[in-house]
Amino acid sequence: MQQIWLPLLSGLCLGLASLCSAEEGLEFPNFDGKDRVLDMNERNYKKALKRYDLLCLFYHEPLPANKGLQKRFQMTELVLELTAQVLENKDIGFGMVDSQKDAKVAKKLGLEEVGSLYVFKDDRVIEFDGELSADTLVEFLLDVLEDPVEMINNAMELRAFERMEEDIRLIGYFKGEDSYYKAFQEASERFQPYIKFFATFDKSVAKHLSLKMNEVNFYEPFMEEPAILPGRPLSEMDIVEFVNQHRRATLRKLRAENMFETWEDDMDGIHIVAFAEEEDPDGYEFLEILKDVARDNTNNPELSIVWIDPDDFPLLTTYWEKTFKLDLFRPQIGVVNVTDADSVWLDMSNDEDLPTAEELEDWIEDVLSGRVNTEEHRGRRRVCRRPGKR
Amino acid sequence: MQQIWLPLLSGLCLGLASLCSAEEGLEFPNFDGKDRVLDMNERNYKKALKRYDLLCLFYHEPLPANKGLQKRFQMTELVLELTAQVLENKDIGFGMVDSQKDAKVAKKLGLEEVGSLYVFKDDRVIEFDGELSADTLVEFLLDVLEDPVEMINNAMELRAFERMEEDIRLIGYFKGEDSYYKAFQEASERFQPYIKFFATFDKSVAKHLSLKMNEVNFYEPFMEEPAILPGRPLSEMDIVEFVNQHRRATLRKLRAENMFETWEDDMDGIHIVAFAEEEDPDGYEFLEILKDVARDNTNNPELSIVWIDPDDFPLLTTYWEKTFKLDLFRPQIGVVNVTDADSVWLDMSNDEDLPTAEELEDWIEDVLSGRVNTEEHRGRRRVCRRPGKR
Repeated sequence: MQQIWLPLLSGLCLGLASLCSAEEGLEFPNFDGKDRVLDMNERNYKKALKRYDLLCLFYHEPLPANKGLQKRFQMTELVLELTAQVLENKDIGFGMVDSQKDAKVAKKLGLEEVGSLYVFKDDRVIEFDGELSADTLVEFLLDVLEDPVEMINNAMELRAFERMEEDIRLIGYFKGEDSYYKAFQEASERFQPYIKFFATFDKSVAKHLSLKMNEVNFYEPFMEEPAILPGRPLSEMDIVEFVNQHRRATLRKLRAENMFETWEDDMDGIHIVAFAEEEDPDGYEFLEILKDVARDNTNNPELSIVWIDPDDFPLLTTYWEKTFKLDLFRPQIGVVNVTDADSVWLDMSNDEDLPTAEELEDWIEDVLSGRVNTEEHRGRRRVCRRPGKR
Repeated sequence: MQQIWLPLLSGLCLGLASLCSAEEGLEFPNFDGKDRVLDMNERNYKKALKRYDLLCLFYHEPLPANKGLQKRFQMTELVLELTAQVLENKDIGFGMVDSQKDAKVAKKLGLEEVGSLYVFKDDRVIEFDGELSADTLVEFLLDVLEDPVEMINNAMELRAFERMEEDIRLIGYFKGEDSYYKAFQEASERFQPYIKFFATFDKSVAKHLSLKMNEVNFYEPFMEEPAILPGRPLSEMDIVEFVNQHRRATLRKLRAENMFETWEDDMDGIHIVAFAEEEDPDGYEFLEILKDVARDNTNNPELSIVWIDPDDFPLLTTYWEKTFKLDLFRPQIGVVNVTDADSVWLDMSNDEDLPTAEELEDWIEDVLSGRVNTEEHRGRRRVCRRPGKR
């Protein structure tokens, strides 16, 4: 097989098996070759903004001279084209904005980060800084199309709400669609789809959640008790400010839809990273210990652990194993320097048992105090230099 | 953008955002252009079988003359090449077997279904009949590499085990690694990774599960109580036969790793299909009702409902909406004829509330008796002819 035009190939999906079968109902889309992604410029951007429910713009560097990079660029276009095709009936426009040629348009639209994708919905802009695959992008856009506030009407829906412990969630109790609810809704639109907003008009649901009228609760991921937003009724800005202050959770799960954003939000150049497969008994056990630690330390603004479930990122698993010199069939926790990917990992290899919450807290204290760091080597841990780096 | 060589493009993932960032640690693999997938033939297949822990062979039709189909074929090769690259350190061999040119090899290896992928591990063959994307394939192969029996040693791991209600699971209680455990392990290898096998040597874990020594429990997905395999100690064949008889669950979740296999396992040409997003309060509620129905009817061999969570298949969501004329932002249940994808759906659009378990059971009874079918139109439901079909 010759050297190929696909430097960035990864999650390609072929419905080949279905082609050989006489059965129908599971046909993966084939790109039909039709152009749907617009070349945005000063003449057409306003019209596009008006015309679609959502406008999805990829902000990119000028077409590179280098052939390899050109192929890479074409692949991005293809991801957008396939996404546009799949979502053809959904009234979503797609376009490309060149950071040089269309600098004026970019400025007017407020596009800042080259390589990001911006979604315009009504008068808002939502930045997508996640895995740029058709899967992830389609799912993200379908989420953006939904109502930003989800109603909780009964005990069963309440149970669904209570199970979502991985997400940042807000829930408010309102009399109905009055001005207080509207303020809540306006706030929700600023965080959609990254932060989930729920509301109830139902007295018994509110009672179960100990919510007073016009009160809003904020649930940090993995915490048992919510925080109550101070004051009520709350204005849109009250809610927005509270969320902005509290959105970096003590334990946060890495997700494809905003993985680069999460990674960029480091703590002084490092991340404490925990790998644990939730579907695996060992991984589950370790995750429960992590949650205990997070609950004990939820008021420490210095601490934020990024939990990565390797099952969610099959294509990165072996890259991580190599970069960090880890066995990801087992749970792991370590410190990663995000500027050079140097890392140091808690040595759990010789133990029958996983560390206790107390042992983990001691180790985290050593990390936060700098006693455990990626520049030195001592005690019960392994420092890993990234391969190829001196 | 010109017509492109990617008729089957879908889950392409580009780590572009990471390219623009100074941060390291999340680099998606780029295909490096190196050939890793072998062209299998009579001369090299035995050596390959011996050389690798796993050998992964794609059984395909001869290279087609049609240019479009050729591109499609190249894309399959690329998915395999990228998978091979990502798993380079894992001692897995990859190869292609041409159903015409390599007919003899195929026969010797027992390859049957063109378009399937066969994985050889020790003296077993595992067929992969799922979504042929690098993501899904990498995850599948990593699962195959793991031990087929997972140990449950303590209360926390037991909790992890009990949470896996979507999977078919077996768990056995043994004294240690004796011949009874070995028989259980041999059986597990025949079903890896599709059916999960667990074992415990721990008395208190066994007690919690009401397991006697050398006893094995079988958990059907979504059922509260397990079935006890008759007799003990059990031979490998006792276990294998029991699993084969019980593996089609009353409620089964469609999964990327074996989606085509599940779809081919229809009930007299039809599937009862339920769409429900578990992360959505409505979807969760509907799923709970479905589980109740499945529990009430677990002894009916005529009934098997395929549950599809649209979140797991973003690229198929709009295809299903179009083919079945559905709104998948809401839960849905219907009957699909797998030979032509005609379908009929329970009309839930005018109701404030979802149907009760009783109403759903009545409707299912109508389906099983043929009163509700895809060929006629009556009462509280909608028949949908596939677009473009007369």
